[in-house]
Amino acid sequence: MISKSIPWLVTGQSITICFLRAGVQLMSSYQNLSEQFKKISHLEHVQSISSWDEASMMPVGGGEARGEAMATLGVLIHELKTDPRIAEWIDKSSDEQLEPEQRASVREIARQYREATCLSPELVGELSRTSSRCEQAWRILRPDNNWQEMEPLLGEVISLVRQEASMRAASTGMSLYDSMLDVYEPDMTCAKLDVLFARLKQFLPGFIGEVLDHQASDPVISVGSRFPIEKQKELGMAIMKTLGFDFKHGRLDISHHPFCGGVPDDVRITTRYFDDTFIQSLMGVIHESGHAMYEQGLPKAWRDFPVGRALSAGTHESQSLLMEMQACRSREFLQYMTPIAQNIFLGRESNDPAWSVDNLHRLYTRVERGFIRVDADEATYPLHVILRYEIEKDLIESKAEVCDLPEMWNAKMNEYLSISTIDNYADGCMQDVHWPAALFGYFPTYSLGAMTAAQLFSAVNDQVPEVLGSIREGNFAPLLHWLRENIHSKGKFLNFDELLTSATGESLNADYFIGHLERRYLGKLD
Amino acid sequence: MISKSIPWLVTGQSITICFLRAGVQLMSSYQNLSEQFKKISHLEHVQSISSWDEASMMPVGGGEARGEAMATLGVLIHELKTDPRIAEWIDKSSDEQLEPEQRASVREIARQYREATCLSPELVGELSRTSSRCEQAWRILRPDNNWQEMEPLLGEVISLVRQEASMRAASTGMSLYDSMLDVYEPDMTCAKLDVLFARLKQFLPGFIGEVLDHQASDPVISVGSRFPIEKQKELGMAIMKTLGFDFKHGRLDISHHPFCGGVPDDVRITTRYFDDTFIQSLMGVIHESGHAMYEQGLPKAWRDFPVGRALSAGTHESQSLLMEMQACRSREFLQYMTPIAQNIFLGRESNDPAWSVDNLHRLYTRVERGFIRVDADEATYPLHVILRYEIEKDLIESKAEVCDLPEMWNAKMNEYLSISTIDNYADGCMQDVHWPAALFGYFPTYSLGAMTAAQLFSAVNDQVPEVLGSIREGNFAPLLHWLRENIHSKGKFLNFDELLTSATGESLNADYFIGHLERRYLGKLD
Repeated sequence: MISKSIPWLVTGQSITICFLRAGVQLMSSYQNLSEQFKKISHLEHVQSISSWDEASMMPVGGGEARGEAMATLGVLIHELKTDPRIAEWIDKSSDEQLEPEQRASVREIARQYREATCLSPELVGELSRTSSRCEQAWRILRPDNNWQEMEPLLGEVISLVRQEASMRAASTGMSLYDSMLDVYEPDMTCAKLDVLFARLKQFLPGFIGEVLDHQASDPVISVGSRFPIEKQKELGMAIMKTLGFDFKHGRLDISHHPFCGGVPDDVRITTRYFDDTFIQSLMGVIHESGHAMYEQGLPKAWRDFPVGRALSAGTHESQSLLMEMQACRSREFLQYMTPIAQNIFLGRESNDPAWSVDNLHRLYTRVERGFIRVDADEATYPLHVILRYEIEKDLIESKAEVCDLPEMWNAKMNEYLSISTIDNYADGCMQDVHWPAALFGYFPTYSLGAMTAAQLFSAVNDQVPEVLGSIREGNFAPLLHWLRENIHSKGKFLNFDELLTSATGESLNADYFIGHLERRYLGKLD
Repeated sequence: MISKSIPWLVTGQSITICFLRAGVQLMSSYQNLSEQFKKISHLEHVQSISSWDEASMMPVGGGEARGEAMATLGVLIHELKTDPRIAEWIDKSSDEQLEPEQRASVREIARQYREATCLSPELVGELSRTSSRCEQAWRILRPDNNWQEMEPLLGEVISLVRQEASMRAASTGMSLYDSMLDVYEPDMTCAKLDVLFARLKQFLPGFIGEVLDHQASDPVISVGSRFPIEKQKELGMAIMKTLGFDFKHGRLDISHHPFCGGVPDDVRITTRYFDDTFIQSLMGVIHESGHAMYEQGLPKAWRDFPVGRALSAGTHESQSLLMEMQACRSREFLQYMTPIAQNIFLGRESNDPAWSVDNLHRLYTRVERGFIRVDADEATYPLHVILRYEIEKDLIESKAEVCDLPEMWNAKMNEYLSISTIDNYADGCMQDVHWPAALFGYFPTYSLGAMTAAQLFSAVNDQVPEVLGSIREGNFAPLLHWLRENIHSKGKFLNFDELLTSATGESLNADYFIGHLERRYLGKLD
């Protein structure tokens, strides 16, 4: 009750009584680095919680003040990350006696320091202002299909991103696009991507045609369109528990765009609900739970250090897609989930064919050639990604200009998915926020995640044959245990290729993903 | 959907693209001070939201990491507040051409700087560690009535608090206790308090006896004991809206201890619900709304500066008590609220005598001599506060020792409320967290708030005669308008005496509070 009457003791605005640091001691460079990155990590903790709050809790009138507070915090964190003493400490630590894990920690600190310092402050400022303006314009222009006004704004962004790429390339010694990719997916290169994507481009278009023929004769029965949000939440929470989400270290809320935020010890996932379908919210919750359980399983002893974080964007996506696409669209999972969903939505178990495992499986595995990447199924999704990868690579390398975008988009859409986007910018090259937001080099990680998920799920089924049977019983422990050991607990100690090789015995190979699609959608056996 | 797949763009853990500061410019000392305090204010914003989150949202397993993050943020804010350049800038700004409001801003910055620097870092560290240990022990020892183990721990705290008082006294030139009081209630002194409290001590004991006699013949009828939490929340939200709480700049949630947190543009209040009574949650919500509306009404142009903050603890409490005790336990408010509560809890309006305005008024104005301050009614409450004030003043001035506490407590309880606390430490000197938490000098502000609330409410009724009539219609606009103009918008531009004199025409005078009690509890006319 005390805090009831002392608002500023709670808000901390007037009185700060806190532990002060012990006097200056002689610390090794490794210790200095560790102290600096602990401090950064602690500030990123409150930054992360405040971001989650902004998206899920904050009343609309709080936005302006929050924006200013977050900008100040962001600048402060950036200052700490670019402190010139870091370079000195990294340098000197090479002469210190360190354990292999400590060496790895310094390696990842050095990578982060390089990333934080390789761009000039002027370019960072310009990029932030220009992309922020472009993103805000995009929100208004996209609904109006207004490419004419979008084009010059996006042109400014691309011109700055080319400067970014050339500075990154100078710092890493990599090619322009590789250096952009490296931010999200270290050690991945165009050379490797091209091989993987060539295999998908060769396989998918014909495969999709076959699947569409196959599914045309096997229509889905409607399961109705009244799913109270409270019941959807009940189902989502029950399934999160089944998957192994640790509610002592996380929670589920609502936001406009689903995301996984917070910190490893307190992971905040969100979803959104539509009251005419439970499909999206359920698979959304499962997807975010996959992200969240990765965070929850990161090595506890290295919480505050870059080496203890998730390995890469693709690896993160592999964990969400492994849960969503591999495990939870399987017939085994649907066998487990169907009676639970029946009880929640119908109040009893039911023999209604619409509510059969077969029909829910059909519902969860429909394939469709569509315009919109974020609505795409797992079979067509990679073609959306490859299209963007090829275009953004050309843009970065100045082989294409912003004025070429609509035509390139239409040509590739025709080639890969046999649909035209002529004059339809809103569903074409204006559909994603990534480019207006100056986010280049990220798209490939979605499909790297899908391929990795398939390869990992194949490996775990080989190594732990009871996994699918257990899922049918609602027991995800064998799967989660394997992921904890082979992926989550590794942080950034291994690079991507080492991680995948140690977990599955080989480097990333698109055949696992292709094999998975063939089995699921055409019923082919290995 | 983008953020769905890029957790660290949301968490901000890996990529920080932010505006960088413009190059160094030649700034005036006043501008330097302003920049420094904007920065502090922005960090206090995320500190405040994170504290709210900790109390109302955070899963239990997140506590350890959060504690570390908050400690780092607290140290950082403390470093910014004690930056030695602040002294220099304050000094130099006296030669600069400033507006009167800017002068006031520097004055409040100087006060905050003095408060942040007057204690040695060693003492701050010791105080924090010792009080934290004592507070944690208190949580365990109080339920066990274990004074024996409490005594030495509290003794250590008191010994440090005496050092705190002597450092504060050296810095302010005030007496020991005045300098402690000054932190929460600037410009208040023991000399002024003693006059005010003497009046209450002389009046209250006899008055309470009279009221108890009076109420004994007029018992409360039970309104039942089933109040679903959803319905209590509905009532609370409806009343918050009526009061004028701005939901665009705030929200209501649940926490173990009700409080008002957040920031003026985004005020977070909390309550707690018991399903066998709606009385506590409703008056709790009204109390916190009073705090919140003060915050929401602070001068917008001075958001980031000390001078734009709430004036003092007592003034803050006056705003919560004005709503809770003056406005919303009035017969006029209950006339408005009763049919609303009937509709919510009974589903219809009712003539049930238990649900009559008279009975609810009885319920909301019961007086009882009790052990526990936080459960006390407005008539007995000041005696609890005076008891603590007198004891803590003696402790600070070394006129009493921790071993004297139980006996002093019992003697004063007997004198003021005719009840004994012999051997009952849990409901006696161990009942509050304040002293274990090293919080001395705060207690008087509760009763300063109550007296101020009565004086303000009397003034507004004189100056705006329609206020009570409007409240009967559920229209709080005239009241809120007056508070906004006379109190909220003033921030710290006036001192307490100037504020009260400008709003009511005179300095704080206990007679208004006494007159209010006589009218409400004995039906006396002025």
